[in-house]
Amino acid sequence: MSTFRTVRGMRDFLPKEAERMRYAEQVTRDLAQLYGYREVITPVVESYDLLAAKSGEEIRKRMYAFEDLGGRKVALRPEFTASIARLIATKMRNEPKPMRLFCVGSLYRYDEPQYGRFREFWQANYELTGSSKPEADAEILMLTYDLMKRLGLRNYWLKIGHVGIIRGILAQEDVKKEQQNMIMQLLDKKQWDGALTAAREFGVSEKCATTLKSIFETRGKDTSRVLKKIEKNVGNYESAIAAVENLREITELTRQSDAEFEMLIEAGFARGLEYYTGMIFEPYVPEMDMALSGGGRYDKLIELFGGEPTPAVGVAQGIDRLALAVKKQKVSPKIPKRKRVAIIPIDEKLRARAIEISLVLRRADIPVEVEVMGRTVSKALQDADRRNITHAVIVGPKELKEDKVVLRDMKKREQRVVKTSNLPQEILKHELT
Amino acid sequence: MSTFRTVRGMRDFLPKEAERMRYAEQVTRDLAQLYGYREVITPVVESYDLLAAKSGEEIRKRMYAFEDLGGRKVALRPEFTASIARLIATKMRNEPKPMRLFCVGSLYRYDEPQYGRFREFWQANYELTGSSKPEADAEILMLTYDLMKRLGLRNYWLKIGHVGIIRGILAQEDVKKEQQNMIMQLLDKKQWDGALTAAREFGVSEKCATTLKSIFETRGKDTSRVLKKIEKNVGNYESAIAAVENLREITELTRQSDAEFEMLIEAGFARGLEYYTGMIFEPYVPEMDMALSGGGRYDKLIELFGGEPTPAVGVAQGIDRLALAVKKQKVSPKIPKRKRVAIIPIDEKLRARAIEISLVLRRADIPVEVEVMGRTVSKALQDADRRNITHAVIVGPKELKEDKVVLRDMKKREQRVVKTSNLPQEILKHELT
Repeated sequence: MSTFRTVRGMRDFLPKEAERMRYAEQVTRDLAQLYGYREVITPVVESYDLLAAKSGEEIRKRMYAFEDLGGRKVALRPEFTASIARLIATKMRNEPKPMRLFCVGSLYRYDEPQYGRFREFWQANYELTGSSKPEADAEILMLTYDLMKRLGLRNYWLKIGHVGIIRGILAQEDVKKEQQNMIMQLLDKKQWDGALTAAREFGVSEKCATTLKSIFETRGKDTSRVLKKIEKNVGNYESAIAAVENLREITELTRQSDAEFEMLIEAGFARGLEYYTGMIFEPYVPEMDMALSGGGRYDKLIELFGGEPTPAVGVAQGIDRLALAVKKQKVSPKIPKRKRVAIIPIDEKLRARAIEISLVLRRADIPVEVEVMGRTVSKALQDADRRNITHAVIVGPKELKEDKVVLRDMKKREQRVVKTSNLPQEILKHELT
Repeated sequence: MSTFRTVRGMRDFLPKEAERMRYAEQVTRDLAQLYGYREVITPVVESYDLLAAKSGEEIRKRMYAFEDLGGRKVALRPEFTASIARLIATKMRNEPKPMRLFCVGSLYRYDEPQYGRFREFWQANYELTGSSKPEADAEILMLTYDLMKRLGLRNYWLKIGHVGIIRGILAQEDVKKEQQNMIMQLLDKKQWDGALTAAREFGVSEKCATTLKSIFETRGKDTSRVLKKIEKNVGNYESAIAAVENLREITELTRQSDAEFEMLIEAGFARGLEYYTGMIFEPYVPEMDMALSGGGRYDKLIELFGGEPTPAVGVAQGIDRLALAVKKQKVSPKIPKRKRVAIIPIDEKLRARAIEISLVLRRADIPVEVEVMGRTVSKALQDADRRNITHAVIVGPKELKEDKVVLRDMKKREQRVVKTSNLPQEILKHELT
């Protein structure tokens, strides 16, 4: 029946892919611990108003929004930051700053499904709140680089921009916030001409339009040269100058601290979310034409949700995209090989003994599968072979009388009789080839 | 603003609770590996029809169901088994049997929120498919016991029943499947009188009603005695006799294999889900008046979803309830204590060096937080004290000239100058007191 399929845009992860995903998730969690980010868990279902407040039009109209059975307007979270900002504004408002928080889970957007883009996807979020200093922004960049490095990725770079450049110019030209947002949305979609047209419609001078155009075209990996060029272009737009200066501080801190990754400065770079107030960035690898993650500074959001004015910077690491990049670059995840034991009773009467032995082995941290199909030993061994079982334990009445069992090395196809009490050590001391 | 709260029935987990939850989740994942269950990941959003097919009326009417933007009737999964059965019936239909699958994640039911019951909750599912033998049922029971043991819980017991007893009697009395379902739903809510009344309405004989009544009242921890009593009660209802025999085999296998847990046999025990066909069970601890988990045999579900006829037995472990039980029983989760280092540059010019040193320490697997507030050393140390930082590294110009930094033991309040290149080893060799 067609109803018994996954819903369009939703995915199943079979064991191999699931292992990749969980591995990437574990790396993000280990990283959180190494950087001092404490994990919190927030719900998938949140108030629509909370999620809609500053997510931006593009995301707003793609939310899974509905009424719950109590008539509340709710939605599945399309991103984490609103939930974390809510938490900081409410239950965690009295925690000392800086506060570093981590969360990981699934998110939902009704996007058109395509390669690397699904309606359910996974992110690991890192939020550093309480500091407006460039070292906070630098930390988020470093952490993103460190994650890619730990995952074994190569040739990655960070695209970096600063919403303060464009917004600074537009604000000084008296373009309203909502109109600015529209222009930023166009930039997010790389519609630079459209953004220029919109800016003209919203009343910027022709001189300003020329300035904007030259800024949209400024990008490059030689950060200090590019920043100089942007600085020259922004001319007398004061808060834009401050934004460029901030970006210079952040990128210099990062460069000086010996991290080995490329930065691509792009002055006309914008991201879909409306809440950004400063540096923004996205990491890339050459094999994939999409951002693996995304982050930036959002100094006003926590205040908006009723909290104290709290500067903040964070990043959402795209776990499934990172896992895809790992696959694309043919990196072998560092998942250790483990022994896998099958226990096969020779006849039905020994089933309980087989279970008993399995408990003993598992207490020694050895993975064990007990024969549950009632098959003959040869059938069960055949199946064990196919499933990459490393050792079989055959439980027979003759050996059991002397408290022994048969231990078979599945690879070498060798077997011998061992004392049941020695079984865990016998298996543990085998080297996996 | 009131909209900036969690939606009713939804929860935030602050760092301490989140750690408990993730610990319990990790124990469930380790257990899966030890028992040979491979992890799969299925979506939170599934087709309504799939989820509604056999979940039972109680759950059906409490689903978070809605139309997506494409007009599809979807719902948030209220349990995992339907998704896993779908997977086995479709993408994994050609995998050899037995197949052991594990999955873990959040589930959604619009229940009335109360202690231990939330609208978003977490489960770890273990499904063993392909075997109809009692050792498969026993494995699921053992695994559940093993999980509780590994979590450090005490005094737990499993309540065990078999839907084949009541359904066998009702079927032989020509009670229709839908009517049987209604009776099972009443039993699930412990409305034994209601169930009897319903059975009479659906046409069972008075003698049968007397039989049912005595069965509803039969329960106890002396399994062989209780099973004998049930057997006597079921009289000539053939498939009910077979069910009792099956239950005897399962519980004997479990008892003989040396696992130390109590079983409470309850003949009139039912669970809300309609798909069960055999043994069913729930684990309990004395401190909590609710099932921590729940499982049973469902031999027809995979077939219903278009797969081959495939016997199956599984369990959904309630991760948040288990975490709650761990808390209630004051068990200390075995979360290892870790060193936490703060790096504090004496002046702004040394920020990049501080970041650089942090990268080196993290490569040695040491958690590090870099000062990002631009505070004085004394202010930063004060804050580090409050946050249980174990070591502070103070980066000053004088020491740096000799490639050294100040390492401070926060507990002992002692500090000394060490070579930067020796810093990781110096920190690693410290014993945490």
